Amino acid sequence: MDKVLEEKLNLVKETLKKSYVYRNACAVLQFDMETICPPKAMEAQGETSAFLANEGFKLIKSDEFIEAAEYCYDHRNEEGVSYLDRVLTEMLHREYVKIKNVTPEKNLEWQKISNKAYVKWLEAKGAADFGIFAPVFEEVKKMNIEQVELRDEKKATPYDTLLDDYERGITTEDLDLWFGKCRDRLVSLLAKVQASDKKIRTDFLFRPLEDHVQEKIARYMLETIGFDFSRGAFTTTEHPFTSGLAKNDIRVTTHYREDFSSNIFSIVHEGGHALFSQLIPEENYDYFLEDEMTMGMHESVSRFFENRIGRSRAFISLVYPKLRELAPEAMNDVSEEELYEAVNVAQPSYIRTEADELTYSLHIIIRYELEKELMNGNLAVADLPKAWNDKYEEYLGIRPRNDAEGVLQDVHWTWGYGYFPTYALGNMYNAMYFNRMKKELDVDALIRSGNFAAINGWMKENVFAKACYLEPKEWIKEITGRDMTPDDYLDYLEEKYGSIYGF
Amino acid sequence: MDKVLEEKLNLVKETLKKSYVYRNACAVLQFDMETICPPKAMEAQGETSAFLANEGFKLIKSDEFIEAAEYCYDHRNEEGVSYLDRVLTEMLHREYVKIKNVTPEKNLEWQKISNKAYVKWLEAKGAADFGIFAPVFEEVKKMNIEQVELRDEKKATPYDTLLDDYERGITTEDLDLWFGKCRDRLVSLLAKVQASDKKIRTDFLFRPLEDHVQEKIARYMLETIGFDFSRGAFTTTEHPFTSGLAKNDIRVTTHYREDFSSNIFSIVHEGGHALFSQLIPEENYDYFLEDEMTMGMHESVSRFFENRIGRSRAFISLVYPKLRELAPEAMNDVSEEELYEAVNVAQPSYIRTEADELTYSLHIIIRYELEKELMNGNLAVADLPKAWNDKYEEYLGIRPRNDAEGVLQDVHWTWGYGYFPTYALGNMYNAMYFNRMKKELDVDALIRSGNFAAINGWMKENVFAKACYLEPKEWIKEITGRDMTPDDYLDYLEEKYGSIYGF
Repeated sequence: MDKVLEEKLNLVKETLKKSYVYRNACAVLQFDMETICPPKAMEAQGETSAFLANEGFKLIKSDEFIEAAEYCYDHRNEEGVSYLDRVLTEMLHREYVKIKNVTPEKNLEWQKISNKAYVKWLEAKGAADFGIFAPVFEEVKKMNIEQVELRDEKKATPYDTLLDDYERGITTEDLDLWFGKCRDRLVSLLAKVQASDKKIRTDFLFRPLEDHVQEKIARYMLETIGFDFSRGAFTTTEHPFTSGLAKNDIRVTTHYREDFSSNIFSIVHEGGHALFSQLIPEENYDYFLEDEMTMGMHESVSRFFENRIGRSRAFISLVYPKLRELAPEAMNDVSEEELYEAVNVAQPSYIRTEADELTYSLHIIIRYELEKELMNGNLAVADLPKAWNDKYEEYLGIRPRNDAEGVLQDVHWTWGYGYFPTYALGNMYNAMYFNRMKKELDVDALIRSGNFAAINGWMKENVFAKACYLEPKEWIKEITGRDMTPDDYLDYLEEKYGSIYGF
Repeated sequence: MDKVLEEKLNLVKETLKKSYVYRNACAVLQFDMETICPPKAMEAQGETSAFLANEGFKLIKSDEFIEAAEYCYDHRNEEGVSYLDRVLTEMLHREYVKIKNVTPEKNLEWQKISNKAYVKWLEAKGAADFGIFAPVFEEVKKMNIEQVELRDEKKATPYDTLLDDYERGITTEDLDLWFGKCRDRLVSLLAKVQASDKKIRTDFLFRPLEDHVQEKIARYMLETIGFDFSRGAFTTTEHPFTSGLAKNDIRVTTHYREDFSSNIFSIVHEGGHALFSQLIPEENYDYFLEDEMTMGMHESVSRFFENRIGRSRAFISLVYPKLRELAPEAMNDVSEEELYEAVNVAQPSYIRTEADELTYSLHIIIRYELEKELMNGNLAVADLPKAWNDKYEEYLGIRPRNDAEGVLQDVHWTWGYGYFPTYALGNMYNAMYFNRMKKELDVDALIRSGNFAAINGWMKENVFAKACYLEPKEWIKEITGRDMTPDDYLDYLEEKYGSIYGF
């Protein structure tokens, strides 16, 4: 390798290493604030965290660093540059072009808009009144348009640019096709479920379980799916999340709700995210690439564990005896079949985060259709609540009674557009690689015998190995040998719900 | 105030403020490592913490800072310098003179000796063989002598200099007198207890309680004594501790042992430390003086809550019904009187940390007598185990069967001498202010009614208010109007144990 290039590459990596020390510290402080930090200490600790974050940012926003990183990017195809060095320089370049025309003043202005939007959103949601949120929603919309306009390279539509930030290489053309198919088949599947006279009992899910029983259940679930406690930790928070603090420190949280199955699927979902981070190649961490899988890829894995594994007959059969042992007061008169059916009830509902496996993607498609129109200029902010309610009525057959259970339910639009589709894409990705896995492994038998080493080994080798280096379409092709399609996902849902509801 | 002085004082305070941000971050990282950080992430997080600590240290070890701080110290009595500014400059000067002749190389050398001593101590303790520890113990001893020799100002004996670092203004002359009295009266009190034919049952303390029950007990104890959960947090660790992370962030931990009363007195002890930090004047934090109380003062408060409150008849009467409610499986056949007696059993034992209230100070006095002689040159390292065992036999009537339950039990001698006496001093301090409190408040009635607001209010006004500004002797005189004496402490123990054991 050229000597100058070698020096620049070293400078880039050494600087990133230093900035990661600050990042690690901030991650610990944030986790602490989410879990145990006392209320009156939050503000000061938030300031400490912001100070350290800024110290870390300064390092990677220096002219010297950017110049070196761009030099490496320009010379990335030269002899002696390793594959991962090249991936690293491409990642840095991608981040750089996003912000190169953004002045610090502009950035601060945007932060303020987002902060204001969050405060107004909370207020509006509390009052169930979109009118309170509408003026700042306009500002967020303008901000998103401005963010696109400041890019040197633009995609087919303004919305495409934002979407690409979350899910590289995926376009509105793709989503119109895939989500269109999805919408039509799911709406008709839901109609069949609703026409069925199948009765499913769910009463027992709401029997009160003490927190320490729920904690035992959550730990058992993590142990079962193969979460590595020597490289991770587990606790509770109001809103469950997974946080990668460092290479050997992936933490998950869950919550204990009235419906105790919420804890089970929450922890299996977050456990899936964690397994992804625990089982990517170790070099990803050495090359600062550990978060380079897209949001959709990450979500595909968490939903693989939550739905494809967690809500399967085989998994319910595996965990049923243990649940009876840990929570006899809730489970003593419940059969394995009753448990399986209860966690797979499908019915239209207002709130995305509480939606079942069948209707979930419809919630996403509604948001996609609306935000695309908002961004591309075909929908006025003032018309949004009505458009939202109309779509809920059309696709799910229910009309939100107010804005709080309608258009105001999610926080995402306080900062921008393009995130929502990744949730539904995750469902489609995992359906494709699950079908591939089934060709190579007797997945059902492995789950029934609790052999997650085999399942996770396959995931590691096929799904996790290149996730941080490839775009989603390339990645799916690499794993399955096929082009992206929503068909696997839809076929699976139709087969599953047909079997449960008897049609 | 003189303009130069004003500028220097501002520089000092602004620099301390910055360094406290790093200190806050390190404290959170350390707490995280003690409580939830996964095993394989410890090393990296330790490095992050060390890096940040060093960034903070650099600020307050710069020539500019030291020069400014010393300037302020020299001008501390000038007009316009506030009381707390003066206390702050005196504290900084005290810290400075300790290290002014210590080169960074010397400091590193000492750190290495301490680290090596810790490793060897663990090994020696595991093998119950002082011989393994002896060579490095010699090095630690030499290091302590060197530390004293490098001071510009020296106290009456080498040991006095070390003692003064932990307990300002207390001398070996004081301790020889106070601990001498203490030893004689406690040895004779113990003889009376052992001659008594009183039978006390303790079987029920060892009935197994599940962790979630013990957690409820610990929380109840903290709530009862008035721990402020909005400015503090609580969790479990192998070795209980209290950590002040920030002004509004004082955290305590406890452990769940076979003997469930261990949890109760642990959490009340740590809760006492925490109340001290939560109830000192808020300005102490603004002037970086929040840790300026001596070790003995801090220990006096934790032991006040653990023993004077926690092991009193009134407190047992207060908590007895709740303990029966929370742990019926352990308490259903136990009377209030039986509980009171069980937590006040006195008997000689080998291990300091498990000692009862009566014998505790004898363990300390033995250590004091030995480390004073070691430091002042009248005891050879090789003779230490025998000297230790002889003293245990003489004062407590038992002879350790090996070094692990004898001379190797404590970690303190891996770094130095002078710490141990503070534990016993704490017992004496609180006996004096407890007697003062009883003249002003009906303490017994307040405890029985759970009115800790009144008790803590008195502590705040009398005990906590000036602790960070005064030396122990001044402080005790200020609170009680009397000079330091061990008599109150010894009178109390004689009265209490006479009443329990019937003599």
